[in-house]
Amino acid sequence: MSSSLRMTTLCKRIRANIVSSTTTAKSGHPSSSLSAVELTAVLFFGGFFNQDITRFDYPFNDKFVLSKGHAAPLLYALYEAARVLTHTEILTLRKFNSHLQGHPTPELPFVDVATGSLGQGLSAGLGMALGLRLKVKELGIPMKREPTVWVLLGDSEMAEGQVWEAMEVASFYKVNNLIGIVDMNRLGQSGETELAWDSDAYKKRIETFGWQVLEIKNGHNIDEIQNVFKKANALNTVRTQKPTMILARTVKGKGISFMENKEGWHGKPVPSERLKEALKEIGTYDKKIKGIIAPPQFFDYKTQEKTKKILEKLGRVIGGAGGGDPNGAHIGQSPKSTEWAKESRGRIYDTSTKTATREAFGDALQDLGSTNPAVVALDGEVGNSTFTERLKKTNPSHFFQIFIDEENMVSVGLGLSKIGYIPYVSTFAAFFTRAFDQIRMSQYSHATLNIVGSHCGCSIGQDGVSQMGLEDIAMMRSIRESVVLCPADAPSAYFLTKEVIKQPGIHYLRTTRGKTPIIYGKDETFPIGGLKVHSPSHTTQKHAALIIAAGITVHEALKAQKDLDKKHIYVVVVDLYSIKPLDVTSLSSLVKKANHTIVVEDHYEAGGIAEAVLSALSLAHEPPSSFTHLCVKKEPRSGTPEELLHFEEIDASAIIKAVA
Amino acid sequence: MSSSLRMTTLCKRIRANIVSSTTTAKSGHPSSSLSAVELTAVLFFGGFFNQDITRFDYPFNDKFVLSKGHAAPLLYALYEAARVLTHTEILTLRKFNSHLQGHPTPELPFVDVATGSLGQGLSAGLGMALGLRLKVKELGIPMKREPTVWVLLGDSEMAEGQVWEAMEVASFYKVNNLIGIVDMNRLGQSGETELAWDSDAYKKRIETFGWQVLEIKNGHNIDEIQNVFKKANALNTVRTQKPTMILARTVKGKGISFMENKEGWHGKPVPSERLKEALKEIGTYDKKIKGIIAPPQFFDYKTQEKTKKILEKLGRVIGGAGGGDPNGAHIGQSPKSTEWAKESRGRIYDTSTKTATREAFGDALQDLGSTNPAVVALDGEVGNSTFTERLKKTNPSHFFQIFIDEENMVSVGLGLSKIGYIPYVSTFAAFFTRAFDQIRMSQYSHATLNIVGSHCGCSIGQDGVSQMGLEDIAMMRSIRESVVLCPADAPSAYFLTKEVIKQPGIHYLRTTRGKTPIIYGKDETFPIGGLKVHSPSHTTQKHAALIIAAGITVHEALKAQKDLDKKHIYVVVVDLYSIKPLDVTSLSSLVKKANHTIVVEDHYEAGGIAEAVLSALSLAHEPPSSFTHLCVKKEPRSGTPEELLHFEEIDASAIIKAVA
Repeated sequence: MSSSLRMTTLCKRIRANIVSSTTTAKSGHPSSSLSAVELTAVLFFGGFFNQDITRFDYPFNDKFVLSKGHAAPLLYALYEAARVLTHTEILTLRKFNSHLQGHPTPELPFVDVATGSLGQGLSAGLGMALGLRLKVKELGIPMKREPTVWVLLGDSEMAEGQVWEAMEVASFYKVNNLIGIVDMNRLGQSGETELAWDSDAYKKRIETFGWQVLEIKNGHNIDEIQNVFKKANALNTVRTQKPTMILARTVKGKGISFMENKEGWHGKPVPSERLKEALKEIGTYDKKIKGIIAPPQFFDYKTQEKTKKILEKLGRVIGGAGGGDPNGAHIGQSPKSTEWAKESRGRIYDTSTKTATREAFGDALQDLGSTNPAVVALDGEVGNSTFTERLKKTNPSHFFQIFIDEENMVSVGLGLSKIGYIPYVSTFAAFFTRAFDQIRMSQYSHATLNIVGSHCGCSIGQDGVSQMGLEDIAMMRSIRESVVLCPADAPSAYFLTKEVIKQPGIHYLRTTRGKTPIIYGKDETFPIGGLKVHSPSHTTQKHAALIIAAGITVHEALKAQKDLDKKHIYVVVVDLYSIKPLDVTSLSSLVKKANHTIVVEDHYEAGGIAEAVLSALSLAHEPPSSFTHLCVKKEPRSGTPEELLHFEEIDASAIIKAVA
Repeated sequence: MSSSLRMTTLCKRIRANIVSSTTTAKSGHPSSSLSAVELTAVLFFGGFFNQDITRFDYPFNDKFVLSKGHAAPLLYALYEAARVLTHTEILTLRKFNSHLQGHPTPELPFVDVATGSLGQGLSAGLGMALGLRLKVKELGIPMKREPTVWVLLGDSEMAEGQVWEAMEVASFYKVNNLIGIVDMNRLGQSGETELAWDSDAYKKRIETFGWQVLEIKNGHNIDEIQNVFKKANALNTVRTQKPTMILARTVKGKGISFMENKEGWHGKPVPSERLKEALKEIGTYDKKIKGIIAPPQFFDYKTQEKTKKILEKLGRVIGGAGGGDPNGAHIGQSPKSTEWAKESRGRIYDTSTKTATREAFGDALQDLGSTNPAVVALDGEVGNSTFTERLKKTNPSHFFQIFIDEENMVSVGLGLSKIGYIPYVSTFAAFFTRAFDQIRMSQYSHATLNIVGSHCGCSIGQDGVSQMGLEDIAMMRSIRESVVLCPADAPSAYFLTKEVIKQPGIHYLRTTRGKTPIIYGKDETFPIGGLKVHSPSHTTQKHAALIIAAGITVHEALKAQKDLDKKHIYVVVVDLYSIKPLDVTSLSSLVKKANHTIVVEDHYEAGGIAEAVLSALSLAHEPPSSFTHLCVKKEPRSGTPEELLHFEEIDASAIIKAVA
């Protein structure tokens, strides 16, 4: 059987499965899947995409990202053709107990990143390509070809600015092992795309962003696709130093004549009464033909001995200190990481001077970088403000300047985490709102991301409200399994920066612009889920108030406590550095021992510390009967930090007023 | 005095004010301001930018957007040179009681949109350009030249994908009255930009996005700038149908030799001990020379009579029904708008069938569009899902297809609101997370934006978690003065879509994908800040439970109530369609009359309805002593809506279980 006939047979099989699965599901996107059948069939089964399907966690597999996530039926049909999934499984598409969800998620071993919010796949792919390259380089493994990340994009999503952010940064980093394929099927959800089939316009745009562009005039012609992919693979060498985009003109709904190139078929399955007609048009095929995905054969080794050594090395890397778990569960969980945490000395902060928590974060990041080879930092061109530049100085190959494109930065971080790196992504807290969708999607990729937002709250002062992170706690708490931390001083910020490495998942560390006094000693620990209690000079049966604060407001609360002490009004101050999870048991008992509970936070009213506290206490059936919430209620403006804390009534004087 | 000497004198004055004001403030961005002195001085005082400075609210003024908002000292110095601000005021920069904040805000009459989060200005400018064009066209005013929007961009912010989104859509709409100027000063905050001074690379990129590009080789050469601006103004006619970008090569810190083109000076003022040296280098200047901003002279009128008629027409328009208040406080507040609301008939929904709230939104939008000429809709290429397509059908010129670029969509909406239009921006609730930063910044522009997020919650079913808005309430509540609404049925969705038009500000309307039964009659009203109480068949002194729900969960709560009724367990159901503001008085009294309070919501745990309720009740010192929160706690997946509501334990059976 000729290779071309094999491919045609596989395409029929894939088409039939796309149509059957969506019709059975009564929903889904067959038309968007059908347009890319030939493109992906040739990619997967023509020897271009190299993956060991017996070992999806093999760290040097190529990666495939379905950026147009709604074409999930296509992805599933490809793996059915490869016999990774069965036809029976295919027909469970979109059903409650099926792993074959409407949009792909990493429940499936061949999916690295969840997609479905358009325009993110190229960034995630870029992160993986950077990560694979770094890993190969650091391990010193001789390779014929770097593991390559293939990203299938829809043409509608080319309107997302993030795609162009990814292109810009990919060409800046000369990432040749990233190959995009645009399935240019002309039709979006509700009408024609901006550029329709104007491949020339796309080509020019993409080339000006520093990419090589190859064109497939007929995205359903197997021979033409094969030839172009051969060219792409030839270009994919370290020497070209350019990423490649393949523009393929395709027909939406291809293969079902009543659907082909027609509006009104986006996200609509073939009605069950027309299924037979559709399958007839697709035609019969030899069911014994199997799609073979070629495993990677990268290594330039000649002897068994050498192979063995390399694999030994890899084994050590995967399980140990060299690069983490390629499935994203990072190496911090291994015993080795605890050793790192122990090994790295803490820093001693001079208690006679003040230090900003953002700076202590930079210190810890730098120390981590010199002990943990999996740590990488991503910067949004503000590294001298966030202090990620400290890592850049000592470990430049683990520092990625992503420039001012927060969306791309977060998704590149996600990609790096999927190669086993532990990314710290950092910019001003306010600007992470730019990447909320990317953070949201990262949770569905089950990524490990340490997000560090500096310049939180009105206490930043003179720069004014546009630069103030005032909704960041609300945003980060809303991520289902996130951890939200807000240290008040340098030692706690230093500790927590290192602490988050011990567990996978999404962590948010909120740091303050201004320098703050040192509260804690160098041996103090700050477990996630803990809090610190600062008792008044005199403890009583029932204190006048419990003041719950975090970050900058801890200092205001302590000032208030000191002043009140002198007036023989005794209040307890809680440094709630761990906002999520929070220690509800301790809080409950503290609330009970106080006449009044006050939460004071440098954040807007909704979704912040007060609501976290009230929610936890209410669910424990122990809500505070008398409660005050001091927070940012007026629109902040420029001024000194002191003026703003006073204006917003979250300073010591406001706390004292609330107690009295 | 020659025009060139005048300009040189003004530039000295502007430079001196930039340096003095930032040194006095001890913070700010002189280097980023200095690079654009000549560019903006020629723009403002060379007759290119046309603004009536005695009447900033004149609706046909040109608009200037300082997209690189950190160059605020430059903006203030320009208006000082024009004698709009005094030198004394200039020296209040960044002080607490000054309007001259670190980044510009609309506190100042010459600022339309707050800037400071980079990459948003071109989109806002595009919205204004589209709005000005629409207004001119609809009023039928004969104009020599459309009012033009000038946007000053930094080169660092060219990395933001949103800039390219704006470029793409601007060329799609052939918006010739939008002119961008890139202040290409090579240096970002922490180092060199990606393209540095490679104007050729910028030019190629921008041209491929459908813009005309003009180059200024020396952005400090007044003659060259004048020549290029003349060309730009010549191109700015309806005939060219292309937006224009001017690329100007400049020197960061220009005019202060120790700062010029040097790293490490971003965001740093001249130290006070070097101020004298800096001012000396800038040189002395004739303080009597005033910068004249030419007022707009657009009209092609010849007689006084005609002028009068046009102005009368304008007067009617500004105050009345034709296009709203150009300062953004929209016309909905005028008596006339109440008439519209009354005039437009409600729709009668057949109680025997189900209707999705997203569809009722579309109905109301369509009805509004035919009665209120200020209403516009912006779509993220999902208009057939969100039902904005209804307006497109009946009022196509007020419908803007912005394609899949949510960031740009929100900022374009902001721009339109600043021209007096009332924008409804709509996409899936989940994808508004993409535009959180743009929504955040819109609040500081004091914009009117009606944000409509469809497909909320896990109840969307089969599409899976990437498409589910599960953090949208948390996000939208965190906006300081937002209104957050979640209607449960078609009549309430219809009513609330129209209700939001009565007041300015940011409103969020959360709509559901699935069809839901009709609960309310056509004469029912749903004031913002209200709620609906559904009593059980038998009312008692103390009910078994109070169930607070919104949207889809209202239906589940009512089912539960019906079932419990049969078992003689009487529960009160609250339809909390107005989540922010909420009626805490009614809620308090209802909570007191129930043994147990349950909040059930199709949203993640943090920041949603439960926390809104707990926060309000706690601040009223009446927290519920016994409380249950039913919400989305597990990672949702594909399935039927019923299966998902059940899986997440937010369906009727879970409510019954929580009551029992």
